[in-house]
Amino acid sequence: MKYTDLNFLKFLLFDVHKIEEILKFSKHSDFDKDTINMFLDAAKDISDQELYPYYQEFDEKPAVYEDDGIKIHPQLNNIFKAIVESGWVGAHFSPEHGGMNLPHMVEGAAGHIYSAANNHVSGYLALTVGSANLITSFGTQEQIDTYVPKMLQASWMGTMCLTEPEAGSSLGNLRTTASLSDEGHYEIKGQKIFISGGDHQFADNFIHMVLARIDGAPKGSRGISLFIVPKYRIKEDGTMEFNDVLTAGDYQKMGQKGYCTAHLIFGENDNCRGWLVGEPNKGLKYMFQMMNQARLEVGMTATSIATSSYFHSLQYSKERRQGKKLNDKGERATEQALIIEHPDVRRMLLMQKSVAFGSLSLLMESFKLYDLVENTEGEEKNDIFLILDLLTPIAKAYPSEYGLLAASNGVQVLGGYGFTVDFPQQQFLRDIRITSIYEGTTTIQAMDLLGRKITAQNGKALLLLMERINEDIAEAKRNETLTKYAEQLENSIKTTQKTLEYLLPFAFQKKYQSYLKDATLFLELFSHVVISWQWLKMGVVSIKAEGLNESLRQGNILAMKYYFNYELPKIKYLSDTIISTDDVIVDDGKDYIN
Amino acid sequence: MKYTDLNFLKFLLFDVHKIEEILKFSKHSDFDKDTINMFLDAAKDISDQELYPYYQEFDEKPAVYEDDGIKIHPQLNNIFKAIVESGWVGAHFSPEHGGMNLPHMVEGAAGHIYSAANNHVSGYLALTVGSANLITSFGTQEQIDTYVPKMLQASWMGTMCLTEPEAGSSLGNLRTTASLSDEGHYEIKGQKIFISGGDHQFADNFIHMVLARIDGAPKGSRGISLFIVPKYRIKEDGTMEFNDVLTAGDYQKMGQKGYCTAHLIFGENDNCRGWLVGEPNKGLKYMFQMMNQARLEVGMTATSIATSSYFHSLQYSKERRQGKKLNDKGERATEQALIIEHPDVRRMLLMQKSVAFGSLSLLMESFKLYDLVENTEGEEKNDIFLILDLLTPIAKAYPSEYGLLAASNGVQVLGGYGFTVDFPQQQFLRDIRITSIYEGTTTIQAMDLLGRKITAQNGKALLLLMERINEDIAEAKRNETLTKYAEQLENSIKTTQKTLEYLLPFAFQKKYQSYLKDATLFLELFSHVVISWQWLKMGVVSIKAEGLNESLRQGNILAMKYYFNYELPKIKYLSDTIISTDDVIVDDGKDYIN
Repeated sequence: MKYTDLNFLKFLLFDVHKIEEILKFSKHSDFDKDTINMFLDAAKDISDQELYPYYQEFDEKPAVYEDDGIKIHPQLNNIFKAIVESGWVGAHFSPEHGGMNLPHMVEGAAGHIYSAANNHVSGYLALTVGSANLITSFGTQEQIDTYVPKMLQASWMGTMCLTEPEAGSSLGNLRTTASLSDEGHYEIKGQKIFISGGDHQFADNFIHMVLARIDGAPKGSRGISLFIVPKYRIKEDGTMEFNDVLTAGDYQKMGQKGYCTAHLIFGENDNCRGWLVGEPNKGLKYMFQMMNQARLEVGMTATSIATSSYFHSLQYSKERRQGKKLNDKGERATEQALIIEHPDVRRMLLMQKSVAFGSLSLLMESFKLYDLVENTEGEEKNDIFLILDLLTPIAKAYPSEYGLLAASNGVQVLGGYGFTVDFPQQQFLRDIRITSIYEGTTTIQAMDLLGRKITAQNGKALLLLMERINEDIAEAKRNETLTKYAEQLENSIKTTQKTLEYLLPFAFQKKYQSYLKDATLFLELFSHVVISWQWLKMGVVSIKAEGLNESLRQGNILAMKYYFNYELPKIKYLSDTIISTDDVIVDDGKDYIN
Repeated sequence: MKYTDLNFLKFLLFDVHKIEEILKFSKHSDFDKDTINMFLDAAKDISDQELYPYYQEFDEKPAVYEDDGIKIHPQLNNIFKAIVESGWVGAHFSPEHGGMNLPHMVEGAAGHIYSAANNHVSGYLALTVGSANLITSFGTQEQIDTYVPKMLQASWMGTMCLTEPEAGSSLGNLRTTASLSDEGHYEIKGQKIFISGGDHQFADNFIHMVLARIDGAPKGSRGISLFIVPKYRIKEDGTMEFNDVLTAGDYQKMGQKGYCTAHLIFGENDNCRGWLVGEPNKGLKYMFQMMNQARLEVGMTATSIATSSYFHSLQYSKERRQGKKLNDKGERATEQALIIEHPDVRRMLLMQKSVAFGSLSLLMESFKLYDLVENTEGEEKNDIFLILDLLTPIAKAYPSEYGLLAASNGVQVLGGYGFTVDFPQQQFLRDIRITSIYEGTTTIQAMDLLGRKITAQNGKALLLLMERINEDIAEAKRNETLTKYAEQLENSIKTTQKTLEYLLPFAFQKKYQSYLKDATLFLELFSHVVISWQWLKMGVVSIKAEGLNESLRQGNILAMKYYFNYELPKIKYLSDTIISTDDVIVDDGKDYIN
């Protein structure tokens, strides 16, 4: 069963997002088109053999808490080994830190393949890499030497420990404490919940990246520090001892059941040691490096689930006969049609495809910006970083919100069968539901977009992004087929500007409630503009690129047309609603939501 | 925990939809406001004690197939008994047939309470009543006497057997056969799938209402007849014998796990007898009486799940503190706010409420029309029936489609907790997902609305409905608070008309593909108009009604404002999309959805 299209993925990498512009940097000189193709083909092989066949089984036999620890599906051990062997884990790290300077674009593309095959897997490894990344970025050489090599082998695995029972979206309120001991380490005490990959039987150690408050630190988010807190600490003689990190349970969830979610208690017996990473009180800033990457990864997870859902319903729609085909000839058809022949089924399939592939393109765009940030300096680097930072909340929230709707369409295409466990469609829908919550809910992404990213450096990010979009519009206008879509996107930018012209004065007047109350609608509006831009870009390349498979070319153009006809027009009502609300959602101190 | 609001339900019954207009008919003379209140309070008591406490358990311990039969949760037996005792089962039947002439409005309102408490229950009984209703409507006196009394006691339970492996949406293709025997019964042979409540340990017999094709019958939907096929048939000596109806399995599903879904095999040993109901080849017509009722019931199930989801997330939002409250004073708040104080959480809650309560009002409107149909004659009856028939696809599809989004918001309000099985939010989302598939998918509802109901009797239904809507608009305009919403609804009707003026010429030209390709978008558009109408109506009554609780009054007005600000504006883009598409979703014979 097809769960993603490698040809389309390569089309994005090579044709649309031009990875050769990244490969020209000396850092990546080991790679060329052939080696990248080989790397992706290998990821596909592993996925075909080790990941996809276990997707439904991971759901049926979920991670469980027993005997003071979490047990995950045994196949995960084989998967971890195979993926480590492929070199994917930490592949973007420098060789000095155990990596191979693989561009983020390729790492992300391989991650897409893994998650499309089985989305319960990559989180374990991605969080390990992200944790190792934090250590290499902000840790001491000793910390790097102690932890990173084992983490890139996944014999030790990493987690991010942010959320506490009373501190989720609002991290400033976290209560875990860190007290400096005479020996230089900190004594850690507190509880962390929803810790993905936080404990299982297939790692020798867990390296938790824990946010905690040092005694006497400032209140709120300015008093949070980052600590390495291993489950087992290394004694002076080199042997290991338990570091008082207790696993209290594994959350049972509606989806992603193979991906465990731990409740951890640090220092219940006052014997939990943590080691400060970087400077005190800068923990949140450091963590946001990991967080931003994790947000792209969550966007990719959602994208990958939506992709697999699409291919599964596509396949079904080409096999299932039901109903007569409509026509404009005034005749009644006599034969049963394949359901893919029905307009409404086609609408659902094209919605799935345009959301999944549009998101995938945006993520490739983002990973490319990531690569550019790491290969540039000074103002150029700053500018690219601004664009990446602006796109990140969209690359996270859009695939998770619209991916859910796409996965719901995936169920619908199968009718009653879609609701049964005999087909994975219902699992895609259950699995994807978490992605709009992970690493900052959609509300948080929306506040980040409008409250921080749009206004940062006097709106420079938006100007820079618009320059790029306008370049693509100009190019699209040169082509007859694309002119009307280019113009539609141009008008959509005007709608965005009009909306911002209404909103921004509130920000200048520090009327933050009026400014931000409809941030989620603005996020949706702006997402449609950005995804349409991706589709226009894909349209341009689909028409121009030489040697492109005709089926791929036409498939892209059809999906692009769908997006401009059925999705982008939503921005008009979103803009109208933002501009003309009665303030109905603002708290007036009365209790009328009842 | 609150799962519905009885005060609001009674406000709908007595104030908005004026059940006194039904009670004035002599048939219902046994009932008045007090007896209705008592009936509903009793349903609430049963729900509190017997249904709601088992909601999550029905999910954790689903119906299973074992030993050639299906086992459902033991509590269901207690529930069946309690509800039968309350008189709800078949309450709208005449006393002659074992009922008490309870108006459909009240029966539906009680059904809402049951399904809000635990949506895995009412289907078992509603299908039994629906089957009994088919028998009383079209069966012989002997059939009525044989089956109906036991069915209204739920000692025998009924099902509707339509779907087959190759015939779901397209019933004309069903293959189950019926061969007339010398003894007057028919020999039934075939398979039926997705049979809700099709087998379990708590009924002495199952009375399956089976669609099958009599040997030599016309092809397609004109050759389908309706049969009573009991699991156990009565021998001449009055004892029972197995009627060769095998239970082959129970579908395992992503939700509604307490409500079993059987795979039945009729006549595997050539010993399955069926008895024709009414005339041959009229089965589909008969079945549609049951189907239309079942569609309202599915709409009610979805509405009830969305209602319960709303109250659960409302409760959470009033207890959970997280983040600082935004304001327009240029200050930073210092205290943690309750999450219900955040605009985006309010937006999600108001969306949930406006969808759930708006749907509930539409269903009460529909049940009232049902009651009126049964109490009127001639042209009046015909007119009312036309309106009911027009509203039915909306009353089924809107709650199931928007209810899913509402239930997803319910998960989102709880953040990470919403994804865990520690809270029922994720179960609401899983349970409600089937409702847009049951009894005709949303696509089918949309084709029914645009393809049949809008055009029936030269569009008379729409004209009649518009008359009613315009009356309510005129009344709303007399009130200052409501004028702008009344005008907005008026404009929305113009948008609907404009859309139909574009579409209808295709119908006249028999260009059915062009006419129907975007039927689902039209259904969504028209649903928003209809639900806005319900909200305007509720707005009028909320302002006018005397003695209304102030909190209820203001709560309604706020939810109404939400709907007009955030939901109704969507119709503009829906209309634009219908009118201006590139024909992207029409099959052009090429294989470009790939």
